[in-house]
Amino acid sequence: MSGWLVIAGLGPGAEGMVTREVQAALRDATDVIGYAAYVARIPARDGLVLHGSDNRVELDRAALALRLAAEGRRVVVISSGDPGVFAMASAVFEAMEAGPAEWQALDMSVLPGITAMLAAAAAAGAPLGHDFCAINLSDNLKPFDLILHRVRLAVQGDFAMAFYNPRSNSRPHQFGQVLDLLRQSCGADRLITFARAVSTPEQQIRTVTLAEASPEMADMRTMVLVGSSLTRRIGRFVYTPRSA
Amino acid sequence: MSGWLVIAGLGPGAEGMVTREVQAALRDATDVIGYAAYVARIPARDGLVLHGSDNRVELDRAALALRLAAEGRRVVVISSGDPGVFAMASAVFEAMEAGPAEWQALDMSVLPGITAMLAAAAAAGAPLGHDFCAINLSDNLKPFDLILHRVRLAVQGDFAMAFYNPRSNSRPHQFGQVLDLLRQSCGADRLITFARAVSTPEQQIRTVTLAEASPEMADMRTMVLVGSSLTRRIGRFVYTPRSA
Repeated sequence: MSGWLVIAGLGPGAEGMVTREVQAALRDATDVIGYAAYVARIPARDGLVLHGSDNRVELDRAALALRLAAEGRRVVVISSGDPGVFAMASAVFEAMEAGPAEWQALDMSVLPGITAMLAAAAAAGAPLGHDFCAINLSDNLKPFDLILHRVRLAVQGDFAMAFYNPRSNSRPHQFGQVLDLLRQSCGADRLITFARAVSTPEQQIRTVTLAEASPEMADMRTMVLVGSSLTRRIGRFVYTPRSA
Repeated sequence: MSGWLVIAGLGPGAEGMVTREVQAALRDATDVIGYAAYVARIPARDGLVLHGSDNRVELDRAALALRLAAEGRRVVVISSGDPGVFAMASAVFEAMEAGPAEWQALDMSVLPGITAMLAAAAAAGAPLGHDFCAINLSDNLKPFDLILHRVRLAVQGDFAMAFYNPRSNSRPHQFGQVLDLLRQSCGADRLITFARAVSTPEQQIRTVTLAEASPEMADMRTMVLVGSSLTRRIGRFVYTPRSA
């Protein structure tokens, strides 16, 4: 019985953005657990069980991982991007807290990955090159008023911003409210970048002003980056200078 | 003359945290440019010129990189962590803006890396598992009052926080002021993690309450992570739950 549990980030999509320590963990695993679309990225091999599951069952998935590791399996829970940024690491710790005390003694570690906002920023230039906030715009797990409150404070502090999960079919209108708030408080000329399917063959990077931005520019595969008052274009890139 | 310029992130220190696309760029380079301590991580080989330079000459370094690429060299500018987070990418765009227009037409890209705050968070558990801010505490390039203003707003929004460059020999007292502000506004029980030399053999991770925290717990190699009001311990880990 020498099971272990690794929570690993696969990066945003490109295999070239996976770290070597994550590749090594996947090579040694007996079980890989994650959202089915991410598990589909892992090649099948003898001795490896792939457990793909639906979206929105994060806690079930986390408990399965802990249970298998406690039974002596070598388990990798995978997230897209970085597991610690709006992804599986917190879900595993929540499940650990709710589970038997012995789960806390498991051999367990978190391996970081390239999170979507940093891959998106790199593809656009360096829009997060100065102080910034990362905000999840989904109200599945928090009230929408808190989201607006945080965006308002980020504007007051002249932070650049990265929005995860800006828009989904079940919440088509809220992102429009966020854009309205930004236009009122930052002005029409502030730059905003829509980065879709970053690092995949479908990648699309589009930087526009808030005046030109519309909610339809974002979907479930889009990261949204909002510049600070100093963010500007240079050639085909957008960047935030280091000084304020 | 088919030069190019890649701005690449080496991650926080461990070779296992370097991505494959960054390794590939380094393999194809004729010139590697960066702060001497980071250039020392690149193995010498025939046909590769290593340009190590002092800290605080970022713009000179950036201009050299652009000039060499314009001359047809294959240049990699390296940063520790991610080049887009308080690192070389913005410096290169600043130098591009100040330089000849032809530099804007160069074949150029930014390759993301594992930034220190995410490696530190992974080593500690998942303290950045919900909305968070990244703030550079160095006042080399901005007024210290702006730093305090941003920390205050981050507290108001109940963001988790990641502080880069919390303390140096030239600014020994300001981090103490930030800790005082946090204690006054977040209370004595708020968790704070000091992550030193993350992913290297000297790694030290220490989570304490604000009551227990002292400025001496941070130095130039330390990332500081401050929890939100919901951040808590589970076993030897610290994490922020996904719900607010």
